[in-house]
Amino acid sequence: MRLNQATPEQLREWETTLAEQYQAIQQAGLSLDLTRGKPSSDQLDLSNALDGILHGQYTDSSGTDLRNYGGLDGIPEAKTLFAGMVGVKPEEVMIGGNSSLTLMYFSLQTAMHQGVSDADSAWAKDGQTVKFLAPVPGYDRHFAACEHLGVELIPVAMDDNGPDMDQVEQLVQADASIKGIWCVPRFSNPTGVVYSDEVVQRIAKLGNIAGPNFRVFWDNAYAVHVLNDNAPELPNLMDYCRQQGTEDSVYIFGSTSKITFAGAGVAFIAGSPANLTVLKKHLGFTSIGPDKINQLRHVAFLKDSATLSEHMNRHAAIMQPRFDAVLSSLRSELGDTDMGSWTEPEGGYFISFDSRPGLAREIIALAAGAGVKLTPAGATFPYGNDPDDKNIRLAPTYPTVSEIEKAMEVFVTCVKLASVKQALAAS
Amino acid sequence: MRLNQATPEQLREWETTLAEQYQAIQQAGLSLDLTRGKPSSDQLDLSNALDGILHGQYTDSSGTDLRNYGGLDGIPEAKTLFAGMVGVKPEEVMIGGNSSLTLMYFSLQTAMHQGVSDADSAWAKDGQTVKFLAPVPGYDRHFAACEHLGVELIPVAMDDNGPDMDQVEQLVQADASIKGIWCVPRFSNPTGVVYSDEVVQRIAKLGNIAGPNFRVFWDNAYAVHVLNDNAPELPNLMDYCRQQGTEDSVYIFGSTSKITFAGAGVAFIAGSPANLTVLKKHLGFTSIGPDKINQLRHVAFLKDSATLSEHMNRHAAIMQPRFDAVLSSLRSELGDTDMGSWTEPEGGYFISFDSRPGLAREIIALAAGAGVKLTPAGATFPYGNDPDDKNIRLAPTYPTVSEIEKAMEVFVTCVKLASVKQALAAS
Repeated sequence: MRLNQATPEQLREWETTLAEQYQAIQQAGLSLDLTRGKPSSDQLDLSNALDGILHGQYTDSSGTDLRNYGGLDGIPEAKTLFAGMVGVKPEEVMIGGNSSLTLMYFSLQTAMHQGVSDADSAWAKDGQTVKFLAPVPGYDRHFAACEHLGVELIPVAMDDNGPDMDQVEQLVQADASIKGIWCVPRFSNPTGVVYSDEVVQRIAKLGNIAGPNFRVFWDNAYAVHVLNDNAPELPNLMDYCRQQGTEDSVYIFGSTSKITFAGAGVAFIAGSPANLTVLKKHLGFTSIGPDKINQLRHVAFLKDSATLSEHMNRHAAIMQPRFDAVLSSLRSELGDTDMGSWTEPEGGYFISFDSRPGLAREIIALAAGAGVKLTPAGATFPYGNDPDDKNIRLAPTYPTVSEIEKAMEVFVTCVKLASVKQALAAS
Repeated sequence: MRLNQATPEQLREWETTLAEQYQAIQQAGLSLDLTRGKPSSDQLDLSNALDGILHGQYTDSSGTDLRNYGGLDGIPEAKTLFAGMVGVKPEEVMIGGNSSLTLMYFSLQTAMHQGVSDADSAWAKDGQTVKFLAPVPGYDRHFAACEHLGVELIPVAMDDNGPDMDQVEQLVQADASIKGIWCVPRFSNPTGVVYSDEVVQRIAKLGNIAGPNFRVFWDNAYAVHVLNDNAPELPNLMDYCRQQGTEDSVYIFGSTSKITFAGAGVAFIAGSPANLTVLKKHLGFTSIGPDKINQLRHVAFLKDSATLSEHMNRHAAIMQPRFDAVLSSLRSELGDTDMGSWTEPEGGYFISFDSRPGLAREIIALAAGAGVKLTPAGATFPYGNDPDDKNIRLAPTYPTVSEIEKAMEVFVTCVKLASVKQALAAS
């Protein structure tokens, strides 16, 4: 089915057939959900040993009783583990509670009102306008945090190598009110892109272009979340920053949310000692210290990078068939059409689908009408505004393979029906 | 030893003796610490069963998998448990991470910038001055949170019934920029006072005096932390608020920090459904949900109010000898002098000592010189400023009884020496 080569008669014929198929699917009374970037129960089961793993051993290697107050920046063993995960030094890690989003929001809010260094460096000082670059499509919670704090978002394009760095550099050079950029550098949400070496190098240079108060928010949420052994590695941002003298220009975030228990993991921020000193100072007003016992559990469970890597392979074994179910449906049903394109990621949690322009909203509504819930149209763009109305984020980890197969049958039918209708209307 | 009746000769004699005693103590090379409101290891041991208590059972009563994301306001079972602890309805409870300070800071910050209801209710809107009442002596972290967020603190006096409510009402009526008051209503930090029925009733009426955006920050940190079975109960604030129609005027805070593991417990905020709706809306930008597994552990461990009460009795059995060690030293060494007064609390974590005016700093410095660390002078007052320089907070829970005995020997010697010196200088 190639719409660009079809006659109006063919289009009408296809529309009739597809409308019938859609009606048949509607009658099946499905209730399926492809919206959620959540691990499945099978994946969560992999970490069940966490509870009870301590066997009454509540001290760290220095003998500190981790049950008590204190330790604002985390326990040494966890710093070492997480430093290895994102390629920094242990002393460049500060550990938080169960949510990296909380650390991102905290860092953003601190930068806005207290400053990235001293009070003079506060982005929103004297009511100044603050802008952030948002590579699109991206993660809605990043955008929402900015919107909630009054930060204006400027979309920049993503390609297969990461953000369009020409555009990024131009914008940053032209507008001093741009104070940061959101990045999900490995298996980007939702495209699955891994930033290329050139892109990472150019990001490390942004601190020199943009001035001392600019910060890259490097949300390395999928740092170790590979689907296969050959998945592309992410170049080391902090190493490139050291070469450029821009260590202070980046905040690196990560967590075990999609490694152990999504809601009961451990989150961290990595950054230069200067940055951590500032953040720690302000954090001290909001907390006496994070849950160090849960940190200790994670160290006991994930141990080291080899153990962590084996653990992630077990995740991959559960996730790959789910990704395959989405991809094989897209390939077989839309592969030789001109009705859409999609990413085939080697890690992360999402597949990003682009319909023909102007159809995402329609496809999502059709799918909802047939009992399949998809991420709302525009969710991957600031202010919910996808200018081409084409991007749809598919999240295949949470449902079972057979649920995904049923959901994808609906999805491809909706894509085809919406596409044919649009072509007919234009013919 | 009554300084007011002593002759200069007696004073000189006493000074010589005390100076010798102080020198002898100095030579003992002590290193003791009475600064920390932290549970002892023995107390922490009471909750060692927490890790491993779930035995692979990770769902709540409704079947929700608590390992996964979500549940921003906490699990139902934990809401019920904590509602009972502070005397509200389960639907009036929202559960956070491990720190009630984090929830207090969050509530304060939200009220400042996003508002207690809509954006128009933001305290700091258009750069308005925001003031808070601080009953003194009080908790330094409350004051620090306000200072960090630019809230001006106005000290009000505490007596044996709680804050001086005449003063509180006058201030609130006279100055609309006063937006809240800090309260530690049961076993107040540091005085150990339990607010009287009349005080709690008058606090429930403040919402009607002060206007709709005023909030009582009711830090019920020691809600169940009794030292004996006859400890005075705290009247129920929320019940009085219901009578007054002021349910929206209070935020109630609590945690299990001093019930289970100080650093790995569960914190919560209780409030009217209207208040919780607003807080939850803003919280949703900073978190996908708290650690629900740790909530489940706490429910499995603390079960219900009867089990909780038994558990707190076990704490009391550990803490009472430590409080006794402080009190018996104060009674026997200072009881028939005019050199100070102190509280004899029936719960909480502190004993509050008032020296003769102008001596707290001196006594603390003398103790430090003899190897005994005390909470810094002024710490219990906003801006570290104790106008009478007399209040000293003693925290007897963390050291052992024999350490406390040694520390108190130093303390009373320092009190006497400083007092006699002052009297001599004035004679």
